[in-house]
Amino acid sequence: MGNKVKPEVKIISKPESILKTIYTACRTCYSSESPINICEEANDEEKILKLIRKVLSSGHLSTIEHVQISYAINGISRACSHQLVRHRHMSFSQKSQRYVREKGQFSYIVPPTIGQNPILEEKFDKFMSEISRFYLELTEYGIPAEDARFVLPNAVSTSMVASLNLRELIHLANLRLCSRAQKEIRVLVKMMCEELIKTESWLSEYLVPKCEKLGYCDEERSCGRKSKEGGNNGRNA
Amino acid sequence: MGNKVKPEVKIISKPESILKTIYTACRTCYSSESPINICEEANDEEKILKLIRKVLSSGHLSTIEHVQISYAINGISRACSHQLVRHRHMSFSQKSQRYVREKGQFSYIVPPTIGQNPILEEKFDKFMSEISRFYLELTEYGIPAEDARFVLPNAVSTSMVASLNLRELIHLANLRLCSRAQKEIRVLVKMMCEELIKTESWLSEYLVPKCEKLGYCDEERSCGRKSKEGGNNGRNA
Amino acid sequence: MGNKVKPEVKIISKPESILKTIYTACRTCYSSESPINICEEANDEEKILKLIRKVLSSGHLSTIEHVQISYAINGISRACSHQLVRHRHMSFSQKSQRYVREKGQFSYIVPPTIGQNPILEEKFDKFMSEISRFYLELTEYGIPAEDARFVLPNAVSTSMVASLNLRELIHLANLRLCSRAQKEIRVLVKMMCEELIKTESWLSEYLVPKCEKLGYCDEERSCGRKSKEGGNNGRNA
Amino acid sequence: MGNKVKPEVKIISKPESILKTIYTACRTCYSSESPINICEEANDEEKILKLIRKVLSSGHLSTIEHVQISYAINGISRACSHQLVRHRHMSFSQKSQRYVREKGQFSYIVPPTIGQNPILEEKFDKFMSEISRFYLELTEYGIPAEDARFVLPNAVSTSMVASLNLRELIHLANLRLCSRAQKEIRVLVKMMCEELIKTESWLSEYLVPKCEKLGYCDEERSCGRKSKEGGNNGRNA
Repeated sequence: MGNKVKPEVKIISKPESILKTIYTACRTCYSSESPINICEEANDEEKILKLIRKVLSSGHLSTIEHVQISYAINGISRACSHQLVRHRHMSFSQKSQRYVREKGQFSYIVPPTIGQNPILEEKFDKFMSEISRFYLELTEYGIPAEDARFVLPNAVSTSMVASLNLRELIHLANLRLCSRAQKEIRVLVKMMCEELIKTESWLSEYLVPKCEKLGYCDEERSCGRKSKEGGNNGRNA
Repeated sequence: MGNKVKPEVKIISKPESILKTIYTACRTCYSSESPINICEEANDEEKILKLIRKVLSSGHLSTIEHVQISYAINGISRACSHQLVRHRHMSFSQKSQRYVREKGQFSYIVPPTIGQNPILEEKFDKFMSEISRFYLELTEYGIPAEDARFVLPNAVSTSMVASLNLRELIHLANLRLCSRAQKEIRVLVKMMCEELIKTESWLSEYLVPKCEKLGYCDEERSCGRKSKEGGNNGRNA
Repeated sequence: MGNKVKPEVKIISKPESILKTIYTACRTCYSSESPINICEEANDEEKILKLIRKVLSSGHLSTIEHVQISYAINGISRACSHQLVRHRHMSFSQKSQRYVREKGQFSYIVPPTIGQNPILEEKFDKFMSEISRFYLELTEYGIPAEDARFVLPNAVSTSMVASLNLRELIHLANLRLCSRAQKEIRVLVKMMCEELIKTESWLSEYLVPKCEKLGYCDEERSCGRKSKEGGNNGRNA
Repeated sequence: MGNKVKPEVKIISKPESILKTIYTACRTCYSSESPINICEEANDEEKILKLIRKVLSSGHLSTIEHVQISYAINGISRACSHQLVRHRHMSFSQKSQRYVREKGQFSYIVPPTIGQNPILEEKFDKFMSEISRFYLELTEYGIPAEDARFVLPNAVSTSMVASLNLRELIHLANLRLCSRAQKEIRVLVKMMCEELIKTESWLSEYLVPKCEKLGYCDEERSCGRKSKEGGNNGRNA
């Protein structure tokens, strides 16, 4: 069916020079030089990366707040967006169900455990059609979109522009790449990270689940990536 | 039907002395006295209120951040909670649809424009039963709650503990008591304000829609409470 | 004297396309189109600006949080930086007085009312030399920089990288361009605004003191720019 | 000398029932019961504490944001307050150097490495008197307090009301009880923690330096409390 959608993620905005910006912030804290000069003279990428890695390993994370990334996101469920908007350091502009009226069958996301079972998936698709029909009946009756949407399910597809700084992106990755996070947001955050790593490969060691950072699993049960006591059980990141 | 619910709001936590706390904060900024002494000697309620009103009218709103209120909220829709959690200065602990599995017909909220039409409401109720049946079928089939919930509608009832400081509560009231806000959140925020005003009557002049503060309506169309140019058109707050 | 410094401000980082980013955020809220497509097709600058102005005038300010600007700032006093860091939505990396030891006469800022009186200024300069001598005596004695700095005055020059999104920049301008703000931060924020307006001239109508936005002065006494009752008394922005 | 001051800390506001509030928040997430009922029936302190400890150990820290504490603080230096106000999740009302003019010798804090050397301390005291004389000379000359304060040192005593939620208090303790933090803020935060532990003894295991939480020291050099590799080297918390 054409209305089943999958997530799409694209970076629509980021600083012109990410490494220079962070380097200038780091050096400014420990130097009597003007940050204007520090920035102008920042050209040695190896030296830049060495300092940034050192500052980050010491936990001085405010230095990476100076870099903000904006993502255009499409094809995620309202269940997923409800999880994402709980990250209060992020900025969101989300498609409104109050102001945007669905005009035909709404797009939706099939959750993985249903999608892998053809019989259940068919039932699910049929049910989405029934909901759509009732929604359209309500709006044709004159019920405003903001009230008709009460029948729309969590599966409905939404879109948004979401922006966050690098400190929050690392925090988001630490939490949501964990295999305990729900599959949909895990896939989404993975896509967000990979989009950025395309041009900022040095970030790959930071955009990891929290167990990689902690050295052990702090969840009730470990997925096996890291044990509760530490060590990686022969499975590496 | 027993599963149609209405909002309930109760304050479960607030500071022991709201006025004293704010007064101490206000006076500390403009005094060489110790805040410990200021607080101990703060007993003249008339004088306290006079200072607080003066400080607030000058826009010095950080002084009321020292007071935080915690509300227990029950019987609101996920549509409403999705709006509420966008207030990023608030703290939330919300009933999880991932971890709490619905075991029978879920509770839900009937939107007002549907509730006032008996034929539509009957259809709506019937539809909620159908959704419930499909949800239960999915969970009986072994689909985990976090995936089965993809069929649950925005109408589903949720509950939460929500905390916010007085500055944010006034901001929330300014935005969400406006007649342009959706009815459900308007009713909820009104209940939140009234709960607090029961013991803090001096707050009633601040917990108002934004037009009362601005002196005019800044929405595209005025509801008539204030005109676009100011003045109250003979209808008072 | 060579150690008297003046503020310098330079933008070291901003998004590649500010208008496109904001436009995509605005349109995403009210459209069923994918934000990825919205962004790709955003080319008509007149149409873009028209929508942004409309959305901002309705108070929907979260749409401009997607744009963050990073400033390198040099030559401001610690009095000024203490005011600036109170803006909690900003990110700062400031020269540390704990880790950076002053090695000769420290740089400092002369406040305007002293700078305009040659006799006072001479006394002020002499006093700064005395403080410097005592600071150096302490550090030579083995007192660590973090304790020796207890003698350093508010006048000491500091530097920082400061980042903030456009919503916070407008808020900062509204508060700190007001003639009631201290002169030094007023000049600094004016410079920050002007740096950005160089390339984003459309922002000049938003980066104004709050009275321009309110239509009246909400301070205890008006500077004359706007009267307490509104109107601009013949003096325009 | 009478003008040398030491820190004083007093809680001026906290919720009526801290444990009940947190428990209600925790249970609401995982229960289909109304939070209003959960709160009313929360009476078994042992059961309450057991749940809270379990939720905190799983890292679900938003549940303790519902509790906010307000402290009256007196007798700390502006060096210390400059560090404290960098905690952006806190709310502050601080004595203003713009609006409160010093009328005689200002109070000040003697840093520890100077205070332990009688000769240096005498010089320090004498220097504070000289600064005070110059400040008073400037104000008598008509220089406004906001400009005269440019000569005031970091040692000047300040006072404030500071509020923060329990999540931020634990974070503050983790960072500032570390022996790498400056002595003055370490003592202050220790006092803040102890004030609260007086009535909430269960918090003592959370209000600890970060190494206790991590199990190892993440600073460049360990103070010996925990080694860089973990373990407590025979010295317990």
